[in-house]
Amino acid sequence: MQFNKVLENVTTYEAGKPIELVVREYGVKPESVIKLASNENPYGTSPKVTAKIQELAKNMFVYPDDSMYELKEALANKFEVESSNVIIGSGSDQILEFCVHAKCEKDSKILMAKTTFAMYEIYGKQTGATIIKTEDDQHNLEQFSKLYKEHGADVIFLCLPNNPLGECVDKDDVYAFLETIDSNTLVVVDGAYQEYASFKDEKKRIVAKDLITKFPNTIYLGTFSKAYALGGMRVGYGIAQANIIKTLYKLRAPFNITTLTLAAAIEALKDEEFVNECIAKNFEEMTRYEEYAKSKGFEYIPSYTNFITIKFADKFVSKEVAQKLLERGVIVRDLTGYGQNAIRITIGRNEQNTKVFEQLDEVLENLK
Amino acid sequence: MQFNKVLENVTTYEAGKPIELVVREYGVKPESVIKLASNENPYGTSPKVTAKIQELAKNMFVYPDDSMYELKEALANKFEVESSNVIIGSGSDQILEFCVHAKCEKDSKILMAKTTFAMYEIYGKQTGATIIKTEDDQHNLEQFSKLYKEHGADVIFLCLPNNPLGECVDKDDVYAFLETIDSNTLVVVDGAYQEYASFKDEKKRIVAKDLITKFPNTIYLGTFSKAYALGGMRVGYGIAQANIIKTLYKLRAPFNITTLTLAAAIEALKDEEFVNECIAKNFEEMTRYEEYAKSKGFEYIPSYTNFITIKFADKFVSKEVAQKLLERGVIVRDLTGYGQNAIRITIGRNEQNTKVFEQLDEVLENLK
Repeated sequence: MQFNKVLENVTTYEAGKPIELVVREYGVKPESVIKLASNENPYGTSPKVTAKIQELAKNMFVYPDDSMYELKEALANKFEVESSNVIIGSGSDQILEFCVHAKCEKDSKILMAKTTFAMYEIYGKQTGATIIKTEDDQHNLEQFSKLYKEHGADVIFLCLPNNPLGECVDKDDVYAFLETIDSNTLVVVDGAYQEYASFKDEKKRIVAKDLITKFPNTIYLGTFSKAYALGGMRVGYGIAQANIIKTLYKLRAPFNITTLTLAAAIEALKDEEFVNECIAKNFEEMTRYEEYAKSKGFEYIPSYTNFITIKFADKFVSKEVAQKLLERGVIVRDLTGYGQNAIRITIGRNEQNTKVFEQLDEVLENLK
Repeated sequence: MQFNKVLENVTTYEAGKPIELVVREYGVKPESVIKLASNENPYGTSPKVTAKIQELAKNMFVYPDDSMYELKEALANKFEVESSNVIIGSGSDQILEFCVHAKCEKDSKILMAKTTFAMYEIYGKQTGATIIKTEDDQHNLEQFSKLYKEHGADVIFLCLPNNPLGECVDKDDVYAFLETIDSNTLVVVDGAYQEYASFKDEKKRIVAKDLITKFPNTIYLGTFSKAYALGGMRVGYGIAQANIIKTLYKLRAPFNITTLTLAAAIEALKDEEFVNECIAKNFEEMTRYEEYAKSKGFEYIPSYTNFITIKFADKFVSKEVAQKLLERGVIVRDLTGYGQNAIRITIGRNEQNTKVFEQLDEVLENLK
């Protein structure tokens, strides 16, 4: 069977390892596994959201409200835009996919940072588009500008803050860059971790309404998978001018969000207090990782997210460290696949982090 | 902003109207709404599945197991195939989408029945492919053969039984047709309602393993949205040779199924007794619709599904009938958009159907 030639170059995304796998392969008890590889909110979902889902669980047989009326209204209200400026996806991932497929064909070009969210490239390759990357790993807007002048681009991805490295460009610099971009280039501002970045440093805050008003060729993406603690429920959103949203809708399959997911997202938006408490704890705990890295002489990337990237330079091989931790029931993300001798650890709860340091101490001692 | 030209021809799918809309627009109390427009299992989800989801609801913050190990194993076991023969999608819809996008480009051709599931055409148009349809509304394999000989096709869709009309081609006729199809044409056998068809008439039964072994260019699609009563949870599957599955995986976004959905599907497969009871009741209740149609002098299409299509000929206008029912809180599907002066009604529970007949009596009386 022959398939579209463009698919020959498409690789599949390797997700963070699930708890079930560690249980199956290394015989670790499920309750002992510490999963800090996928940047979930380690404090769990808001108890109010859980209660709502328990109440609604008997409704699983009914197709979701495909208009997503309530959730769209709630998001429009939060972001002070109209419902027609909102699209909801199965994670913000799905909106990325729509953006790429709406704009790109075989002769298209996509511009992104060298080391950024892997799906940008995978979706790009599905269309056969050429991927253009900066030389620096972290976002360097001068390099973005240089490459844009040289090649142009149909789509530009800005990950603010950036996954998997954690750095974040200032809003003013982003706006100055956007001033130079053609109105026919779609700029995707991926704000999956914006709640964290804007909590830590006001200079990083991107306000969706302001962004899309000043730059009608941009789309702001947000997610419920991180700070809102619904990673398992698959829901994110895009905020853009209505003409963009309307086109992206043509690529959306009906019922792309489950009945319980819609309910969970609506409920989660009502409990912002929970979200803010989780973010505050995140940055308290992050200082422990920074101190741990310093104490071992490892470099780390100052992070505006709920994870931290620790570099091993020539001291250790990140792949080995991650594997040894895995065998002990601690799941972290090895960044070898991203060209980094580093691991990315989600900032866990206090007691989880304590265990990570203990296990990491032993693993590093054994690998010496 | 310019987008891909192919999108200009893409229309968006109009889903069955949700209960929320009837409540908002016509002030009907939610508990009084009878939703028989989307072919859900009206008996609700198995209580065992609901209990499981209530137990697991606190896990919503954890990303799903993206390998879907357990559900794949369960499906492989049910269909007596290997895990490598199974792909899981957000409804079988999503597998349709993968099939079309994996095979089709602008110069591709897709062959289908004149009146069949609307998403076949929508996904096709997203790629710019030419859609070729038979002259007859219902599946007519002679016409399929004639058109195939004349034009060829990259993808053929067979909906067995067919949504939205309800008819079903015999397995032997399907096999005879497949013998004549080139090995490079992907034939999608959409079995969304197969549980119903094979319960009613053994001649309609398609056994996935047998199908893909005899015809390695086919893919069998199944869903949890109908008989398995998980329409709200978005999960379906494809069974095909491993080379096809592997390619379709290149189009799958990570985490396309929610954590709770995976758990619900695994649990639903354990409660086949519930499913069989629901199917038996479906056909008992269907006879009431057949008798009702006969008593009014309406033609209906003998159905192998959980819905029935009732034609109004020159007696009534289906759009008006559906609208008047809607205002009374009874949601059915008007088939005007499918070129039929007919309504499609999901077979509800006994008491729901009684109410439908009462309301329909009044609506028809008023429209006379």
